[in-house]
Amino acid sequence: MTAPRWIAAAWGPSSLRIWAMAGRKVLTEGASDQGVSRLGPRDFEPALLTLASGMLPPDEVTPVLICGQAGARKGWVEVPHEMVPCAPHAAPPMPAPSLDSRISVGILPGLGQIDPPDVMRGEETRIAGFLLDRASFDGVLCMPGLHGKWVRLRHGIVQGFRTMMTGEIYGLIARQSVLRHMMDDSWDEAAFRNAVDESTRHPETIVSSIFGIRASALLSNPTPGLARARLSGLMVGCDIGAMRTWWHNRPVAVLGTERVSELYASALASQGADVEALAGDRLTLAGLIAAHERTGRLEPSEAAHT
Amino acid sequence: MTAPRWIAAAWGPSSLRIWAMAGRKVLTEGASDQGVSRLGPRDFEPALLTLASGMLPPDEVTPVLICGQAGARKGWVEVPHEMVPCAPHAAPPMPAPSLDSRISVGILPGLGQIDPPDVMRGEETRIAGFLLDRASFDGVLCMPGLHGKWVRLRHGIVQGFRTMMTGEIYGLIARQSVLRHMMDDSWDEAAFRNAVDESTRHPETIVSSIFGIRASALLSNPTPGLARARLSGLMVGCDIGAMRTWWHNRPVAVLGTERVSELYASALASQGADVEALAGDRLTLAGLIAAHERTGRLEPSEAAHT
Repeated sequence: MTAPRWIAAAWGPSSLRIWAMAGRKVLTEGASDQGVSRLGPRDFEPALLTLASGMLPPDEVTPVLICGQAGARKGWVEVPHEMVPCAPHAAPPMPAPSLDSRISVGILPGLGQIDPPDVMRGEETRIAGFLLDRASFDGVLCMPGLHGKWVRLRHGIVQGFRTMMTGEIYGLIARQSVLRHMMDDSWDEAAFRNAVDESTRHPETIVSSIFGIRASALLSNPTPGLARARLSGLMVGCDIGAMRTWWHNRPVAVLGTERVSELYASALASQGADVEALAGDRLTLAGLIAAHERTGRLEPSEAAHT
Repeated sequence: MTAPRWIAAAWGPSSLRIWAMAGRKVLTEGASDQGVSRLGPRDFEPALLTLASGMLPPDEVTPVLICGQAGARKGWVEVPHEMVPCAPHAAPPMPAPSLDSRISVGILPGLGQIDPPDVMRGEETRIAGFLLDRASFDGVLCMPGLHGKWVRLRHGIVQGFRTMMTGEIYGLIARQSVLRHMMDDSWDEAAFRNAVDESTRHPETIVSSIFGIRASALLSNPTPGLARARLSGLMVGCDIGAMRTWWHNRPVAVLGTERVSELYASALASQGADVEALAGDRLTLAGLIAAHERTGRLEPSEAAHT
């Protein structure tokens, strides 16, 4: 196997992904469930080496560039947020201490915002990847997820962003609320669309309209797939409706990996938004490559490796 | 002990309360945790008798009048919802089967609404109790709770109502979301008031503003009591803000038993509402007494007891 010249890594709350790289080329990749939420500060290097050790040449120092939660307060090393408005990766990666002499670790900063208070770690790298091909984009990014992000992006600068707890609240309601017994594996697309439409127009009614799912089922017999599709549509619509002033009359790019991105793209399109969907996963790696190349240019000692 | 002439009962999802009555006078009362959520159809009578058996005279049939979830689909017997617009208790109680010859059980109907779909069981009795002294009330009732109700009431008729899952969603977020580690036992009243004010004006931003509690704590050191008071204020404000067209320029009565009612009353007052707070508990019993007296008038066989 060709030895990698550097290693890219994305560390989330519940997972770690790494890519062994030669320049922009992926040699091999790996993933584990060693997310930040289950690690203490001394667990990061072992968790990384579990995936990377076999890839590392013995007599060289291989740079490892990490984005995401490894830079959080309880992470490998705390990397201060860069405050918006700014470009993603405006500051260089912060070195993180390591015991294994084969690696030299840097962690990229996330973004912070004072008013309203908000933070991101990891998504800024997806934004950097998006910007590689769209440096002059003037519009809005929608990154759905557990803590989804909406980003106002203009000519490479993040002007502001909002985190929506939509994914986490959806999960709590679907699995643990009074609605949990109504969830099945079917999907009623018309119910989803109607709920998106209602909730986008009246996002403020979300806390009441959710109970309507339960009430409907008590007043008449529910059909399969209705409850789940309607809950999903109400939550997605509330999210989209609350951000209408951002996406109205501006291009929107949905950057995601999961089915939830399709739902957001179709919901936004149904509301008349100018929307396209892109694979978020590849953009994270693209952002890490861009950050690596810039770091290489900035630090002569590391440029010797590439 | 004087034998009761009838027994009043309120059966909720997690509790059962009974009052042994002589006319309008409470002789004694009891409560248990045998709520509907833990009972099958055959468990109701034993659960009732556990509390009531010692109170019952041996050679008489004592009427038992129940409001709440005992009339639900999986309850003692399903009692159809009376559909609004209507008065509470527009239909007489439905007889429920019992094995013990000392009791004759009736269950009061809840209220239902077609558009938007909604249901209540138990709160209609609190409304009936409220109406005893306020037959001509023309305004809005606010009954906060796990599944809180807002009721548009005019001259004794429930014109419409909305259920808010505010209490249940608050609990899920406070105990199980990413915010759970930030909750402490302190209370920051100013933070509560500010959050109410923000969220009442922009209830549609709730899913985003909740994450701001977490983000603030990562950007600066949080003070004790801030997170809990702010989450509470955002949720209460969202609830109130969504219902603004109902309570604006109309009298509002908050009917509740817990601290949450004080929070709603102070939040409504801070938004300029014409608000008063009443003890919801006593109103439930008052509503049961009113229903018993009306039933007695309608059914001569039972009137013989009183």
